[in-house]
Amino acid sequence: MIISIILAAGEGKRMKSKIPKVLHKMCGKPLLSYVIKASEAAGINKNVIIISNGSKDLVESVKDETVIFKEQPVGENVPYGTGFAVMQGKDYIKDDDYVVILYGDTPLIKGDTLKDLVKYHIEKENQGTVLTAFFENPTGYGRILYDEKGELLKIVEEKDADEEEKKIKEINSGMYCFNGKALRESLDKIHRDNAQGEYYITDVIEILKRENLRVGVYRAQDNTEIFGVNSKVQLAQADMIMRKRVNEKLMEQGVIIINPGNTYIESGVKIGEDTMIYPGTFLEGNTEIGENCIIGHDSRIVDSKIEDEVEIQSSTIIESTVGNNSTIGPYAYLRPNSHIGKNVKIGDFVEVKNSTIGDYSKASHLSYIGDATVGKKVNVGCGVVFVNYNGKIKQRTLVGDNAFIGSNSNLVAPVKVEKWGYIAAGSTITDAVNEYDLSIARARQVNKKDWVIKKGFVKDNK
Amino acid sequence: MIISIILAAGEGKRMKSKIPKVLHKMCGKPLLSYVIKASEAAGINKNVIIISNGSKDLVESVKDETVIFKEQPVGENVPYGTGFAVMQGKDYIKDDDYVVILYGDTPLIKGDTLKDLVKYHIEKENQGTVLTAFFENPTGYGRILYDEKGELLKIVEEKDADEEEKKIKEINSGMYCFNGKALRESLDKIHRDNAQGEYYITDVIEILKRENLRVGVYRAQDNTEIFGVNSKVQLAQADMIMRKRVNEKLMEQGVIIINPGNTYIESGVKIGEDTMIYPGTFLEGNTEIGENCIIGHDSRIVDSKIEDEVEIQSSTIIESTVGNNSTIGPYAYLRPNSHIGKNVKIGDFVEVKNSTIGDYSKASHLSYIGDATVGKKVNVGCGVVFVNYNGKIKQRTLVGDNAFIGSNSNLVAPVKVEKWGYIAAGSTITDAVNEYDLSIARARQVNKKDWVIKKGFVKDNK
Amino acid sequence: MIISIILAAGEGKRMKSKIPKVLHKMCGKPLLSYVIKASEAAGINKNVIIISNGSKDLVESVKDETVIFKEQPVGENVPYGTGFAVMQGKDYIKDDDYVVILYGDTPLIKGDTLKDLVKYHIEKENQGTVLTAFFENPTGYGRILYDEKGELLKIVEEKDADEEEKKIKEINSGMYCFNGKALRESLDKIHRDNAQGEYYITDVIEILKRENLRVGVYRAQDNTEIFGVNSKVQLAQADMIMRKRVNEKLMEQGVIIINPGNTYIESGVKIGEDTMIYPGTFLEGNTEIGENCIIGHDSRIVDSKIEDEVEIQSSTIIESTVGNNSTIGPYAYLRPNSHIGKNVKIGDFVEVKNSTIGDYSKASHLSYIGDATVGKKVNVGCGVVFVNYNGKIKQRTLVGDNAFIGSNSNLVAPVKVEKWGYIAAGSTITDAVNEYDLSIARARQVNKKDWVIKKGFVKDNK
Repeated sequence: MIISIILAAGEGKRMKSKIPKVLHKMCGKPLLSYVIKASEAAGINKNVIIISNGSKDLVESVKDETVIFKEQPVGENVPYGTGFAVMQGKDYIKDDDYVVILYGDTPLIKGDTLKDLVKYHIEKENQGTVLTAFFENPTGYGRILYDEKGELLKIVEEKDADEEEKKIKEINSGMYCFNGKALRESLDKIHRDNAQGEYYITDVIEILKRENLRVGVYRAQDNTEIFGVNSKVQLAQADMIMRKRVNEKLMEQGVIIINPGNTYIESGVKIGEDTMIYPGTFLEGNTEIGENCIIGHDSRIVDSKIEDEVEIQSSTIIESTVGNNSTIGPYAYLRPNSHIGKNVKIGDFVEVKNSTIGDYSKASHLSYIGDATVGKKVNVGCGVVFVNYNGKIKQRTLVGDNAFIGSNSNLVAPVKVEKWGYIAAGSTITDAVNEYDLSIARARQVNKKDWVIKKGFVKDNK
Repeated sequence: MIISIILAAGEGKRMKSKIPKVLHKMCGKPLLSYVIKASEAAGINKNVIIISNGSKDLVESVKDETVIFKEQPVGENVPYGTGFAVMQGKDYIKDDDYVVILYGDTPLIKGDTLKDLVKYHIEKENQGTVLTAFFENPTGYGRILYDEKGELLKIVEEKDADEEEKKIKEINSGMYCFNGKALRESLDKIHRDNAQGEYYITDVIEILKRENLRVGVYRAQDNTEIFGVNSKVQLAQADMIMRKRVNEKLMEQGVIIINPGNTYIESGVKIGEDTMIYPGTFLEGNTEIGENCIIGHDSRIVDSKIEDEVEIQSSTIIESTVGNNSTIGPYAYLRPNSHIGKNVKIGDFVEVKNSTIGDYSKASHLSYIGDATVGKKVNVGCGVVFVNYNGKIKQRTLVGDNAFIGSNSNLVAPVKVEKWGYIAAGSTITDAVNEYDLSIARARQVNKKDWVIKKGFVKDNK
Repeated sequence: MIISIILAAGEGKRMKSKIPKVLHKMCGKPLLSYVIKASEAAGINKNVIIISNGSKDLVESVKDETVIFKEQPVGENVPYGTGFAVMQGKDYIKDDDYVVILYGDTPLIKGDTLKDLVKYHIEKENQGTVLTAFFENPTGYGRILYDEKGELLKIVEEKDADEEEKKIKEINSGMYCFNGKALRESLDKIHRDNAQGEYYITDVIEILKRENLRVGVYRAQDNTEIFGVNSKVQLAQADMIMRKRVNEKLMEQGVIIINPGNTYIESGVKIGEDTMIYPGTFLEGNTEIGENCIIGHDSRIVDSKIEDEVEIQSSTIIESTVGNNSTIGPYAYLRPNSHIGKNVKIGDFVEVKNSTIGDYSKASHLSYIGDATVGKKVNVGCGVVFVNYNGKIKQRTLVGDNAFIGSNSNLVAPVKVEKWGYIAAGSTITDAVNEYDLSIARARQVNKKDWVIKKGFVKDNK
């Protein structure tokens, strides 16, 4: 069995935050969730996450059946260090397991890389394999040294490296694959007689070498994978790297993204071929977008399904659906549970909430459709309000096919407009509107002669 | 005569698209259109575009009198390669022509560079001139080799290059200038006995050399000019390069662009000195903006003319005009054929469509002005709707100078409000409003005592 | 005493602008203001700014008591050059002063660097100290040459540098610290018998050396500090550098900024820990934002105070305040002097102006609240207009706690709605609404049978 031990107990003081570090979000999701996902993608189905006590938020936020949490004691007389953290997971390691060491704050690691690491580790019959990467500027990282046979000689920490060693560009990612037995036994042998008085997991490699057990190196192709998040500046950098990855993958699948540096798509969002995503757009959660859509600029779409050939401009759509060929916005707001049919127009300054809008209907401007079922080919005029709330409860309105709702009118729920019903502009409708009837509820116009002059407006304005 | 042969028959499978590759858009315009424009700017007035059959969309989308389309046969028994593509244009080449070879998917080439290439070619009395560029990382390109006299020796393809040759940073752009006769005759001599079984235009250079005809090299200063678009990732990169160019040119002319990396201006848009463009702004099509304006953030302006000292915030303007000193937005929408006078305020959540608004008039919030002619110094209150549609037809409204349109009122078209007419808030106006008259159409207020207590609202809300 | 001489008389022709160069804005504030601020932060309390005549705008725009303006004569028979500009400040220099030479168009210099420059200058007992920086590509700058003892030998200008000197990467920033007496005396000795016929301040260093007075070099760690703005392309680059600095500082303090490259925060804005700023957001002027807020995307907040746990989406807020736990937007507009209480909802397409909104009140959509005092737990329905303007004057509306304002109703100011007052949808309210009363002002609904058929709508629509 392959298991992971994911270190997530770090305090993350440099984050300057009350939120546990590994719960900070990168492209909309917690850092830790990416590590778990990569681990699972690599075929690892037991993830032992080492957390500090007091991380209740963390435990509650992770819903994943592959995950086991283990608390690491923290305090004055308790040791520190990656080695001590891994020791906490010892009980979960069986002798014939393969164990991958990961970090909750290193969220850019890819499942494929972990898979290849484990595969390589097994094929080479290593007892321990270090995941390494190359950096033009390796400052701060442990460097990888090889012997004359090209085998791993040792890992030299920055502070112990001489000038020649400092030039080495291959570095230790801190991620490893170990054989269970070798790791368990080595953990008993690492000590803390170093400057910091901490246990280091890196020492395991040295112990294995000393005992003539086979150790090796697996090189990650993409050095962004080992990027760690220790501050909010690094969080923003990680966000940028992940954003680029998500966007490039979508572009390779045929999506057109005008400016990938300024387009914010969560991993998992599905988008069809030749759909254009304009800058400043946010696509979040469980969102699916069809083909040949134009999703434009500065829109936010969350947990929604958009069909094909839809055009959305400068709008916000939450937990809703939009059918083929419909146009939304600019400046429209679909709140949860809005279901927009095909060939519908939801125009500027229109809000829809918890409503169904039938095919070919239009609400072109300045209207609110709430808690309603609107039929097909309905024309909702400008300034129309579906009055769903009376101060106590919310009630529904039904509008039949081909109805015409005049501008600035109110439909006071519960009320029903039958098909082909016609409401005159400026009417407040409280009773049913029958099929083919005109309903009107407004006062007659009265003209008061020369009122403007008498009231002195002309003089004052001149 | 100088002609171009523009290769545009490539299938572009890596684009993952149903749209022909050269019709994909960079900064709002098809890739191919940039190449044609550069060619024309270089003084070339016949552009032979080699397309694959089935490119009807392509032919229909290009309206340019310098362009001739020629179909390249494609199929199982038909050869491939750039050489074969150029052969299709052979009938258009006269012996004393100069022929420039271009690519529909290499849209960043500049007119000046092509002009200089042709000029250099003629001055040097070359029979063939290769356009080259320098890359820090030249991987994948053909390298340029010189003999001891500094003359072009040959072009070595990546796959044929030895280690030393691979280090050469000067590469073949694939663009050339040829003498017509030399090209025609060489095309008869190129063969396809290479690994791919294709005809290569590059071979022409070798043939000319072999025949002791003079060939040379012209070096492009800016290596972005030869960037080719083969995938949507590259399309986004090309967009970024072109965006930068357009924005830098505007800044050199005196426009202030806060963040050029996030400002989207199509080439051809004109902007006056000291106008500030805020990030997230899109200026498209045939748009002209005056001096000292503030445009932004997140505005979109298409095919519109904006005069001087105008301030536009977070708004969308399509096919409209805005006069001096007017302010638009935030969150306003001018739909086609809106003509806004000078010193006008179109405020938040206001839509104007197919209407004229006179100088010094205001529509400050939450209104729709559609199909109307509004005079000067008119005050359109909040929530006003120009009711232009009755379910059958759209009709116009006329509002005279100095009229006052009270809040939440409806003007049901066709209707006329004379100058100094005054409409009371909440009125639906269906008849003419006379000069200086107050028109009112609303019910009297009735107060129902303790209704709120009787209905149980107080209890429920406590 | 430490004084600065800030050169700000340059014409800045490359800016292509009618605005004086040093008044162009970087991250919302004039270039010159940054230089003055850095100078003041370094403990300099007299800033002599050398301006050209005709810079009235400039003088008027700078309100700072440390600043003295001195006009530099400009004209046909008047010399040019940095040396001549510094000479204009000579009268303000006392023998025992330390004088720092700065530039109005070099706005990225940091106060700490100037402080360290002066400190170093004093400690080393120099008569003149050059501020230098390192550039990978130093083209265009004067290079710093040292003698065999490691002491400053001379500054070689680009045009005078030989090939070996051109490779030197340490360059002269043009900023200096001098002893007053040494500077005064040297200024009398610099001459203009150079190619341009100008006086150069650089020559002072040479003069001091010639007289065996001690000169030295202080190296700026961050070479962006010496970036000068001579064109609008450079203005955009400076903006980017400053934006990055401001954003990184905030992130280090615990603010979460998703994409710092596309987030526009003026220096001086305060933001609390764990507040998330989404891309496309502008935070300007004297703005303060609390902890755990969500701000963005595409919001603009100017001179406003936002408390904790507030969520603001796609909205514009000017000179207003928002209390704890309130939510604003998407697409809301708070105009000046709006005071939003705690737990308030100001929803989509709502404008508030010069009004107070009590705790737990809601205006969820499509409303305008202007010149009003609204109590607690008030429900403002959809499409409600506070009619504050009658064409002559603006008047106020008062709404008591727990009032319910029905949709599409008008409150015609001056008017008072008592607490628990209830206004029926579609009413235009002109008289007081009493406590617990229902106020209604609308016509009864009338249904006209088969009007739709008779008018021919059905036929036309089929």
